[in-house]
Amino acid sequence: MHTDLTLGIDIGGTNIAFGIVTPDGEILKEGNLKTKDIRDPALLPELIEEQIKEFTINNIGIGAPSSNTYSGMIENAPNLKWGVNIPIVEYFENYFKIPTKLTNDANAAAVGEKLFGSAQPFTEFVVITLGTGLGAGIFINNEIFNGKFGTAGEFGHVMVEYNGRNCGCGRKGCLETYCSATGMINSITLLDHAKKNDSHLLKLDQATPQDIFEAAEKGDEFAAHIVDFTAEKLGYWLANFACFSNPEAFVLFGGIAKNGENFRQKVEHYMQQNLLNLYHNKVKVICSELHHKNAAILGSAAYAKY
Amino acid sequence: MHTDLTLGIDIGGTNIAFGIVTPDGEILKEGNLKTKDIRDPALLPELIEEQIKEFTINNIGIGAPSSNTYSGMIENAPNLKWGVNIPIVEYFENYFKIPTKLTNDANAAAVGEKLFGSAQPFTEFVVITLGTGLGAGIFINNEIFNGKFGTAGEFGHVMVEYNGRNCGCGRKGCLETYCSATGMINSITLLDHAKKNDSHLLKLDQATPQDIFEAAEKGDEFAAHIVDFTAEKLGYWLANFACFSNPEAFVLFGGIAKNGENFRQKVEHYMQQNLLNLYHNKVKVICSELHHKNAAILGSAAYAKY
Repeated sequence: MHTDLTLGIDIGGTNIAFGIVTPDGEILKEGNLKTKDIRDPALLPELIEEQIKEFTINNIGIGAPSSNTYSGMIENAPNLKWGVNIPIVEYFENYFKIPTKLTNDANAAAVGEKLFGSAQPFTEFVVITLGTGLGAGIFINNEIFNGKFGTAGEFGHVMVEYNGRNCGCGRKGCLETYCSATGMINSITLLDHAKKNDSHLLKLDQATPQDIFEAAEKGDEFAAHIVDFTAEKLGYWLANFACFSNPEAFVLFGGIAKNGENFRQKVEHYMQQNLLNLYHNKVKVICSELHHKNAAILGSAAYAKY
Repeated sequence: MHTDLTLGIDIGGTNIAFGIVTPDGEILKEGNLKTKDIRDPALLPELIEEQIKEFTINNIGIGAPSSNTYSGMIENAPNLKWGVNIPIVEYFENYFKIPTKLTNDANAAAVGEKLFGSAQPFTEFVVITLGTGLGAGIFINNEIFNGKFGTAGEFGHVMVEYNGRNCGCGRKGCLETYCSATGMINSITLLDHAKKNDSHLLKLDQATPQDIFEAAEKGDEFAAHIVDFTAEKLGYWLANFACFSNPEAFVLFGGIAKNGENFRQKVEHYMQQNLLNLYHNKVKVICSELHHKNAAILGSAAYAKY
């Protein structure tokens, strides 16, 4: 019989994943809903409860894009078609009558890595989430750092090229237009390379980052160029981000980072090459250890208890 | 009769300024030594004491470049010819037998602004020091943020141009090679402009940033271009830095910032223009209020008591 169970929920543009998580980070049961099937987010608590009736839960943690942890609202999320401000914490607290906390997916990932993953040894670290976009969850003094307005750590929107690639935010040259799943796919069209026309990628209808990594491993030179370009850009900017909080480690998390050791090594190499002298040998690049688990559910659940 | 007096010391490459500071931020007496006259920094406590004999001091705050607040050492300061590691806190504590704290000049400035200057209303802010280089003193959760290794906030060494201007740190394109006294002087040689050859600046043997600001005000178009270029670059990067800690305000401090409201307005304009939507109307650019005082002495003294 488990006590002290947490419902961890990860709300994304495509899926809503949830699970029952023990204090040790074990997921007892998982469930899934399609985001587009949810017309009214106020119905979400009831729809989830139907699938987890056999458990008594003590608290709820929700990770979602464009979240404000202080107000408990999802604000202006471009990928969720639910209106401007969604009082998601209120919906869950009213329904379940237990404490509910909301955070963005990058902060959830950071707390997950701290409690259950590769960031356990560190008090100062930054989790870099490489999904559709690029996010950052920052630990300072052994605590998650939200900032005054709950919106710190928007590293994906640091503009790294003057008049660079168009970003969904309306500005140009944001880091996530280069270093993210979207960024890598953009690179297929936007990067030039001598072997571009020979590339297998151009023959794919809708190439994914996974296709790029696989093609690179099979010797596709243009694909290898995209991987290297992405790693170089990311490494260079991790070196620059070290100038902010001078963390002990950057933890690579999510889709692209799943490609593992080879990509991590490249990113670390380019970071070291560009690091300020003062920081040499003081900053690591490591991979998430939660990729084999449902890290997003785990992170959301971890945040509830942090 | 004053009680609770602090000796504030500002160690720079050219001057060592010090003063006796009251808890209200009043400076009762000031003194000065030439840095190059000090062959052995271990003699500094005695040389300073000779000039302040009439006061009983309770603690000491020292601001110096390349300082490590945790070790109490000045480490590898390129502008001080005193060797690799100077245990400056030890020298002062052994001599005066009172608590002594060391920090870098940007953190001293930040604490000074918090206690006595324009940052008093804020719990989250960043002081940007625009001197020979560019530094940042960061307040997070109403406390100065040093980072794990005492070396957070090296905003001057964020590389803002790929293969840009050569920096003293050995890397290229660091922000301080553009936005600092040195950066503005570099701009006289390195920037192109249609009216460059007509400029009064080129006739000056050793133009200072002050000369540039004055020439700009008198209608020198190339000088005005340098001022605008500097403000645009700084504003753009403050917008990017907001993505880190999302502060309530950036406080401009030191040499260039003394040129006041006109420069501040330009910087704020360019920051607003480049700010992520999420941060609109949440970040101010303000000027230091300590420019009429000896801000560096005040900041060092403030740090001693913070």
